[in-house]
Amino acid sequence: MNLCKKNLPIRSKYKEIAEKKCYRVHGHEGSCEEFPYLSDLSKNHPRVANKIKRDATKTTGAAWKSEDAGPNRIDRWVMLQDDEALLKFGLNMRALKPTVVAKLREKAATYNDCMDVAAKLTWLTYQMPDAPECPHEIKIYLESRFGSMTSEAATCIVCKEPLSFSLFENAQRGKAEIETAHANPREHNQENVGFAHRECNIAQGNKTLDEFYDWIAGILERARGQHSV
Amino acid sequence: MNLCKKNLPIRSKYKEIAEKKCYRVHGHEGSCEEFPYLSDLSKNHPRVANKIKRDATKTTGAAWKSEDAGPNRIDRWVMLQDDEALLKFGLNMRALKPTVVAKLREKAATYNDCMDVAAKLTWLTYQMPDAPECPHEIKIYLESRFGSMTSEAATCIVCKEPLSFSLFENAQRGKAEIETAHANPREHNQENVGFAHRECNIAQGNKTLDEFYDWIAGILERARGQHSV
Repeated sequence: MNLCKKNLPIRSKYKEIAEKKCYRVHGHEGSCEEFPYLSDLSKNHPRVANKIKRDATKTTGAAWKSEDAGPNRIDRWVMLQDDEALLKFGLNMRALKPTVVAKLREKAATYNDCMDVAAKLTWLTYQMPDAPECPHEIKIYLESRFGSMTSEAATCIVCKEPLSFSLFENAQRGKAEIETAHANPREHNQENVGFAHRECNIAQGNKTLDEFYDWIAGILERARGQHSV
Repeated sequence: MNLCKKNLPIRSKYKEIAEKKCYRVHGHEGSCEEFPYLSDLSKNHPRVANKIKRDATKTTGAAWKSEDAGPNRIDRWVMLQDDEALLKFGLNMRALKPTVVAKLREKAATYNDCMDVAAKLTWLTYQMPDAPECPHEIKIYLESRFGSMTSEAATCIVCKEPLSFSLFENAQRGKAEIETAHANPREHNQENVGFAHRECNIAQGNKTLDEFYDWIAGILERARGQHSV
């Protein structure tokens, strides 16, 4: 599918190093839009739409926010710039703890990858068994980008159990029970990203899924004296 | 083994509802002591000794400290008191978020259980392969309370791999790589407590070990199409 990809005006403080493009179909009528496929969720489930945008495009840092103060929620592509370039924007990476820097740097991703992730997450969301119905135009758009949408295809990338749309709303200690997750936590792109239960994402930690499965197979073998291959 | 258990003077603000006893052998000479078995670690590895005391006797709350402000590091036995009693000590449980209250309440334990846990953790610590040598008198004391100490018997209660004493010193984002862990997270007593790798303890979450093993067996089965019993 050809996308418009026309450059849109940017208001961010990182303007010079930022990108913003139209992701409507090439040759569309009407005005350009960055997240055309989120129009329905933005209107009817704004928390979900905002979460998709945020997880796709921003670094986070909830866990270390309190102790090791660092900048929170920066555009992931800003983190592709070197220390010197960031200093011009008032972001002194050298003043941050090495662990904070590592955490920020591993979340770096290109604008294109982030935008692909946002669309992929939307495609996954509409496949949850109790998700709202996907408007026809959005369905055509998402299916042409990621393949056909079935009614119950969205599973946790870690435990492979179905994910419920309702988990977006449930909050435990202020955190949603569903999280954006990565088969390899250090790669933020559409092939590598999906949703997971919060507890599954936490258990996976900074391991790749393959490392995680090997690790828990070893635990089970030692704990139960079984042989898991 | 009979312990002295003589009441010792208390300086805590929770004086009226607190306990403090001597845990030296009954009929000992010299002055009473609450943690006689920690004398060596307190002197040579104070961080480890302090961690044992703290984990055994205090509630914690690192993860939720920032967002849901609640009192941190209260004696576990204080949490056995009802809301009304706590109010007299200036601790208004009703002003805290329900999730914080639940977190605090589930860490409640009697003074005796906490003291048994501290001694058990010390007994485990000295069994780590690279632990300092246990002074003879302390070894006799701990072995008579918990059984004989072997040179390499301290394993992570979750993954069953050996634990290294050196992990007490390593810190990742300010947290030790070894944590006090519970086979059942809601029971703080000597049978139920041990050490675990930080990542293992995090993965276990608030599940019991049995629940955790069942859970990861299910994950492996679905992820790899294997049958784990």
